[in-house]
Amino acid sequence: MAEENTVFIGKKPAMNYVLAVVTQFNAGIDEITIKARGRSISRAVDVAEIVRNRFVQDCTVKDINISTESLEREEGNMANVSSIEIILAK
Amino acid sequence: MAEENTVFIGKKPAMNYVLAVVTQFNAGIDEITIKARGRSISRAVDVAEIVRNRFVQDCTVKDINISTESLEREEGNMANVSSIEIILAK
Repeated sequence: MAEENTVFIGKKPAMNYVLAVVTQFNAGIDEITIKARGRSISRAVDVAEIVRNRFVQDCTVKDINISTESLEREEGNMANVSSIEIILAK
Repeated sequence: MAEENTVFIGKKPAMNYVLAVVTQFNAGIDEITIKARGRSISRAVDVAEIVRNRFVQDCTVKDINISTESLEREEGNMANVSSIEIILAK
């Protein structure tokens, strides 16, 4: 999947990411992946639910995957962080 | 699905819920649902990942569902909150 079909969820308000997803659907893209890690996972679910219930009612949750990523911290040791990938499709 | 096969994720440390899930698998239950709402959704993903990677390596993520629940606040108005359901199976 090309990177332009992916929205990465960070620490901004959920509506910022909702707008990014809705804009891509309106541009004719029919499958968008929402990705998040750690504490942002809850926000990713919020974004998917708001898009689907309020803005793009003909889109559905096609697939959801969870996984664990190993990140190297500044001190050099490794930390495991959970991640989620929510695929929305029209 | 019977309620004893469900683990509700709250605000305690993830390992408390990991222990609850592992205990149920060890008691012979072969399908467990992890449920969470709002900010606890991230922790639910952590719990599923820790169980599957560290404790019950023959279990897999069978299904993940997200939805929106309407809760009545104390003041009487309604709030929407996202929820997740992760089904682990051996």
